[in-house]
Amino acid sequence: MLIPLIHEVGMRDGLQMEQKIVEFDHKVRWIEGLIGSGIPVIQLGSFVHPKYVPQMADTDALFRHFTAKGGKRPTFSGLVLNEKGMERGLACGVDLFCLGVSASETHSLKNTRMPVMEALERILAMARTLQQEGRKVQVSVQSAFGCGFEGPIAEAKVLSIVDAYLEAGLKNISLADTAGHADPRQVASLFSQVIRRGDSIECTCHLHNTFGMGIANCLAAYDSGVQVFESAFGGLGGCPFTAVAGGNVATEDLVHMFSRLGIETGIDLDPVIATSREAADQLEHDLPGCVYKTGPISFQQA
Amino acid sequence: MLIPLIHEVGMRDGLQMEQKIVEFDHKVRWIEGLIGSGIPVIQLGSFVHPKYVPQMADTDALFRHFTAKGGKRPTFSGLVLNEKGMERGLACGVDLFCLGVSASETHSLKNTRMPVMEALERILAMARTLQQEGRKVQVSVQSAFGCGFEGPIAEAKVLSIVDAYLEAGLKNISLADTAGHADPRQVASLFSQVIRRGDSIECTCHLHNTFGMGIANCLAAYDSGVQVFESAFGGLGGCPFTAVAGGNVATEDLVHMFSRLGIETGIDLDPVIATSREAADQLEHDLPGCVYKTGPISFQQA
Repeated sequence: MLIPLIHEVGMRDGLQMEQKIVEFDHKVRWIEGLIGSGIPVIQLGSFVHPKYVPQMADTDALFRHFTAKGGKRPTFSGLVLNEKGMERGLACGVDLFCLGVSASETHSLKNTRMPVMEALERILAMARTLQQEGRKVQVSVQSAFGCGFEGPIAEAKVLSIVDAYLEAGLKNISLADTAGHADPRQVASLFSQVIRRGDSIECTCHLHNTFGMGIANCLAAYDSGVQVFESAFGGLGGCPFTAVAGGNVATEDLVHMFSRLGIETGIDLDPVIATSREAADQLEHDLPGCVYKTGPISFQQA
Repeated sequence: MLIPLIHEVGMRDGLQMEQKIVEFDHKVRWIEGLIGSGIPVIQLGSFVHPKYVPQMADTDALFRHFTAKGGKRPTFSGLVLNEKGMERGLACGVDLFCLGVSASETHSLKNTRMPVMEALERILAMARTLQQEGRKVQVSVQSAFGCGFEGPIAEAKVLSIVDAYLEAGLKNISLADTAGHADPRQVASLFSQVIRRGDSIECTCHLHNTFGMGIANCLAAYDSGVQVFESAFGGLGGCPFTAVAGGNVATEDLVHMFSRLGIETGIDLDPVIATSREAADQLEHDLPGCVYKTGPISFQQA
């Protein structure tokens, strides 16, 4: 049985959408809660200019805080968008560097001011540097299942980027449903084609619940052989100030479903739920997840 | 391709959980919105004593209002719990009578003060009367996937009730996940066993999204051959005043997913979404559904 590996991205993809800046001490406490649950990979933040995403201004400090300690600890990942971010990540102890390009030309131009192939060359060069430095690298294809600007994205376009990654020796590959457009059949189709490309590929899914299909998409990914699941505690990631409110798949909901299916991730839900409840209090709004509200399925003799 | 048939239960299973009483005129407008969407079966209410569920006090009046008109219209269903309710339903023009028993002894005792087998005999007698009157009947097994009091429910227990229905010639059978405990593998297992019992069975699922698995469970039911889906506009049905907040699967989210999969239900989402938005305003709280907030997947050239 394939044991799913959870990559918690709430501190990055969740918080970057929040208007209210979360203080460093609160972030530390939330991350400690997530570590306590046994989640094996935790993304602490992204290396972007604080002018653009003030919420991520303390990313370097968080890495220094958590990687300074010795002993057994999770893998800490960070999202890097450019060479400057990579230098910052190398300096503060990132374990796993997450890089990527969008499969949508419009999305790529908006995000990076570069067409997809140019952005890809840049990412490949950065990945090469990181591998020479002996760091772990995950490469992603964003907007892999559809784009909020362009609509449908051709599978061939996504797979051509995947093939460029594989040719460069990059085997840790994530497909991200940035816009939340993915449906379960599409997820199965695309991931099956990636996984068919070789046994040594470590396949990651990053799925949002924007239109309510997030958990069904995760199950389709699992059934297709995907092993790594990026999710956010509480389902963080929806912007409460826009019409399109769906966030990431909620870590609790996902771990809980796997557990109901008899697939044990080794993650203790209680500290994740406690962290989500604290985040909802602190951020002053409900989060989109279910299980942080209900707790796991339980029953009591009447 | 199996075309799913939506049975909208928001006016009953949704509203009965709401503290704020919805006025008759608002109910009429919401039902008109649902009719306008082309939903083929709409549950208008339940025939319970108004002392216990004041929200359902105008069920008879709603049936009289909507069944008096001639012309093409959806099937209107009503939930009936006892003989008195059946008489009321016969008097006010219910098209499809929904009856059922719980597979959980504790749930059955709490709901009906009868053990399951005794409740079953009573339901079978009522169903016989209704068939003699020439009315359509749907029979259900509640708590078919687990019980909030007892926990797991044996499949054999559920199937023994299904077999009693089939022996009585009742072919329209619903399995209801009253507590929201169902997971996709369990849904597939139980429905496959029901469907294997004969070609003429019309199988219905009634699934809640309490723990976030609702849409994944619907897809598992569809893939197992289930044709009828009970859902509620906006995902109504969660009680906003309890810890366990999950409602029914949202009609919009379900129809939208089917549409993304290329499975057309013939339902126009716009009036359903408009109705959910009006209900959220009127009930003064967010509903748990996604698509009524986001609208269907769309994109715009930048």
